[in-house]
Amino acid sequence: MQLYSFFNSSTSYRVRIALALKGLDHVYVPVNIRKFEHRATDYLARNPSGGVPTLVDGDMNLGQSLAIIDYLDSTHPQPRLLPQDTLLRARVLELSSVIACDIHPVNNLRILRYLQKVLQVTPEQKDAWYRHWIAEGLTAVENLLARHGHGPYCFGDAPTLADCCLVPQIANALRMECDISAYPKAMAVYAHCNAQPAFQRAQPSRQPDYTA
Amino acid sequence: MQLYSFFNSSTSYRVRIALALKGLDHVYVPVNIRKFEHRATDYLARNPSGGVPTLVDGDMNLGQSLAIIDYLDSTHPQPRLLPQDTLLRARVLELSSVIACDIHPVNNLRILRYLQKVLQVTPEQKDAWYRHWIAEGLTAVENLLARHGHGPYCFGDAPTLADCCLVPQIANALRMECDISAYPKAMAVYAHCNAQPAFQRAQPSRQPDYTA
Repeated sequence: MQLYSFFNSSTSYRVRIALALKGLDHVYVPVNIRKFEHRATDYLARNPSGGVPTLVDGDMNLGQSLAIIDYLDSTHPQPRLLPQDTLLRARVLELSSVIACDIHPVNNLRILRYLQKVLQVTPEQKDAWYRHWIAEGLTAVENLLARHGHGPYCFGDAPTLADCCLVPQIANALRMECDISAYPKAMAVYAHCNAQPAFQRAQPSRQPDYTA
Repeated sequence: MQLYSFFNSSTSYRVRIALALKGLDHVYVPVNIRKFEHRATDYLARNPSGGVPTLVDGDMNLGQSLAIIDYLDSTHPQPRLLPQDTLLRARVLELSSVIACDIHPVNNLRILRYLQKVLQVTPEQKDAWYRHWIAEGLTAVENLLARHGHGPYCFGDAPTLADCCLVPQIANALRMECDISAYPKAMAVYAHCNAQPAFQRAQPSRQPDYTA
């Protein structure tokens, strides 16, 4: 398999965690989204939505991190990241969706670019935007963990899709210097995950295209 | 079951389609997000992410439309909206994610409100924002359908999660008077779906809280 990834993309980071947890060897192909390499014709031929990551498995090119992780869970089910228990699975998908649908999409690079280049917001307005959606989203995450979570991972003793989503999102919040003091449960999960070798291997700083 | 829904919410609309396709009776509980009823304490107790829809099944309250539809597919598998075939399932989730993660989150009510109230963009800037993300996202959808789709639904003769996501998104685009001439495949799927009684029952205008 090949993973088209950008070190600092949190959707790529999610899939890197899943690959590492499953111990799946793959070739890492860097796509520099800061240089618009994800909009190049040959990349769009692989992934019409023009985002990272893309997973290549044989002659299949698959985009969208949640679709990729679901695919990996079907083709390489150990360890399962989407539980088979109906209620647990629902909780995992609910929390993952808060991150993947409510938080990340409004704070990613293309949105911040539009705010700056088209709407010409100030750096302070951009940062306030970022922190607003982080605060709203992580408050929801914290409340869901308080209600349904039981550590050390989001939902028990084994990592799931929820952890694959949470860790990159918290890493982004820290990088953007958001106040994370109101999310002790999420931060405890983050700390636990980052003590595990698979999560460490997936970190941006460990990728071949990393730049400080 | 109970569905907490707003007639004009496209995430609620997705779940209404799924419920209708599966023929599942439920009580419809309106939540007027224009009046911030989704931020009321009693609603947040049901759904800490403070969005619509919420599905209540027995003593379970579940938020997030994709998690809800996956749950319904587990508990009421006929007809299946998430195919069991690995590759088809991947394509369904990929296209659904383009809509649920790339298009809808940046154009929903809370974002448009922030643009207007906090960033004080003009009505023209707000409309341009909306149409920009619709155009970018539906171009991806159209290209994915061209590559992997085969009608009359997004992926063949049976509706899937992809159709549950596509129809409300196209309805939004039409409501916002976006140019949809570049998406004939998506529009053909939309027309086919809207000729089916289950999709018709889920339409905003057919909900008890509908207002023109």
